[in-house]
Amino acid sequence: MQSLSVALGARSYPIHVGSGILADASLYAPHVRGRRAAIITNAVVAPLFLERVRVALREAGVPAVEITVEDGEQTKRWETLDQIVGTMLAARCDRQTVVIALGGGVIGDLAGFAAAIYQRGVPFVQVPTTLLAQVDSSVGGKTGINHARGKNMVGAFHQPLAVIADVAALATLPARELRAGLAEVIKHGLVLDHAFFEWLEANLEGLLAGDRGALMHAVLRSCELKAQVVAADEREVGLRAVLNLGHTFGHAIEAGLGYGRWLHGEAVAAGMVMASELSLRAGLLDPSAVARVRALAARAGLPVEGPALPVERYLELMTVDKKASAGKIRFVVLEALGRAAVRDDLAQDAIVAAIRACSPVSAAAQ
Amino acid sequence: MQSLSVALGARSYPIHVGSGILADASLYAPHVRGRRAAIITNAVVAPLFLERVRVALREAGVPAVEITVEDGEQTKRWETLDQIVGTMLAARCDRQTVVIALGGGVIGDLAGFAAAIYQRGVPFVQVPTTLLAQVDSSVGGKTGINHARGKNMVGAFHQPLAVIADVAALATLPARELRAGLAEVIKHGLVLDHAFFEWLEANLEGLLAGDRGALMHAVLRSCELKAQVVAADEREVGLRAVLNLGHTFGHAIEAGLGYGRWLHGEAVAAGMVMASELSLRAGLLDPSAVARVRALAARAGLPVEGPALPVERYLELMTVDKKASAGKIRFVVLEALGRAAVRDDLAQDAIVAAIRACSPVSAAAQ
Repeated sequence: MQSLSVALGARSYPIHVGSGILADASLYAPHVRGRRAAIITNAVVAPLFLERVRVALREAGVPAVEITVEDGEQTKRWETLDQIVGTMLAARCDRQTVVIALGGGVIGDLAGFAAAIYQRGVPFVQVPTTLLAQVDSSVGGKTGINHARGKNMVGAFHQPLAVIADVAALATLPARELRAGLAEVIKHGLVLDHAFFEWLEANLEGLLAGDRGALMHAVLRSCELKAQVVAADEREVGLRAVLNLGHTFGHAIEAGLGYGRWLHGEAVAAGMVMASELSLRAGLLDPSAVARVRALAARAGLPVEGPALPVERYLELMTVDKKASAGKIRFVVLEALGRAAVRDDLAQDAIVAAIRACSPVSAAAQ
Repeated sequence: MQSLSVALGARSYPIHVGSGILADASLYAPHVRGRRAAIITNAVVAPLFLERVRVALREAGVPAVEITVEDGEQTKRWETLDQIVGTMLAARCDRQTVVIALGGGVIGDLAGFAAAIYQRGVPFVQVPTTLLAQVDSSVGGKTGINHARGKNMVGAFHQPLAVIADVAALATLPARELRAGLAEVIKHGLVLDHAFFEWLEANLEGLLAGDRGALMHAVLRSCELKAQVVAADEREVGLRAVLNLGHTFGHAIEAGLGYGRWLHGEAVAAGMVMASELSLRAGLLDPSAVARVRALAARAGLPVEGPALPVERYLELMTVDKKASAGKIRFVVLEALGRAAVRDDLAQDAIVAAIRACSPVSAAAQ
């Protein structure tokens, strides 16, 4: 196991990365001792991992209530929060109760937000069981649910007490979800670390095959990179926005198709290719770099083009995205492989051309 | 106008107390300049004050969306949050939008919580229009909604950018609501300031008659006292809990009758008398002090006994209150008029006796 710290003063917390560690009582004990716990998980994750976490908490001497919600993005809604709060109140969970978020990105967002608002806030521990959650969503304190008008439009910044990322849990992950998680890993290289991008080019097959050593390195390096950014800009008033590479386009894809049709990582992958094409058209990135982004995403089995949505629909959806400010659409662009910038002054022509360059033939003809 | 500051480091904010100031554009301008605003109010307050705030924001050069929710405690629920978020999204409110909470305690709690969770948090300004909100709920950053299983069980600590307390707004307040607000004013004297309690004994008639000078003093002194406590213990891990005098009993009354049957201040008034009786039985307070609490509440036209709820129901409701910890009921007790303490070790006999001492004759016989 290796550990690193997200440096946020009084709200600093450790990220533990290892194999088999979600059953390690000693990782929970410092955070839950003398308290109650509420494990929030879903119907797919519970049969795989709940018993091991239950036993670990029992070893740590902590009574735990278990709340299992339905699987999928659509569980990030008011009704599920109401169910969680109701169950915790019925179980007499007090303000010292620690929420354990056991699952992927959806569970981390939902359970973290439930923790943020239960009795005006209780602490929580992230136990991410998907690659996406381990490399991205469990780190940094973003929590929330969706609104009919947009994804993650309701939420809070609420940092966990700890993140326990067990790469052994990835052995049960469907191949499609592993690939979706790799999209965020690739994003970290593209945005922040050229050497890591090159490492990914060299080690992609190992990652796809579930090689534990390769996964450990990918998770650790992703968490290190993200932790540095979060420590410098917790609330995304500046630098942190670069982590949204591909997300302006990606959220439009997810919203345009309806949440859950594409996985988040799939939408981000297509969005990163679009952002690269946009960077090319803005004169920031050269064609060979764009080709490397496309090639790595394609080798990872990720989409390199968007769905058949009209260009006008993309523009409409991106204007309402919460990264939009005073009506302007903000994009993360690449100035090189490993270096990103945020821009809100890009020509509409370039944006449209970037979308068209990544559209399926039928839509490009529209 | 007089102003004071809630000292919370980077989150410090001013409280302005004056007459006619809710129409003063210069008080809004520093907080909204270059942004959008979303005014959240209710169907009772809107006809009285919305136009003046609208004009003030226009003078400050700020486009504002207006959201009017139904009046009453029952509006503090998920569905209203969904409505607010949906309206703000439809109006393209971004992360820089400032929410203006225009109304009483319910609007402050609801709009403040909407601000806390809209796109993971936007700033807000409190414009309290009831005495209760001016002296208590608008100060200190507690926001939230109710759950079917308990009042304020869902929420956030979210400090405003400023509080604009206009005592002229109290002229339109129903007498019953003015009296309910006085309960929290009396509470501040009882908990923190013997001299202020004596000032209230001497000036109650002026306050009840709506004397503006007396109201200014009562609001200012209450805000000063509360601001000191909040500055020392923002998240209620210690000292701040003393401000909950009467609230453990009071919440049981509100929950037992159904929210909104009694006004919050009415329940707190009866709760403060119960807490005084409990303090007496715990050997902390002498009978003459209890008599003064009863007398002042009675002169203010506030209830000095609880509703006809069985004692067992009180105990059950108080155990699920969020001030309960690991199953123990926490009470704020008085050690003198002007000095309070938090205790969770009081004998059940004393608690039952305190409830009985404040029960209507029909219930006491049960």
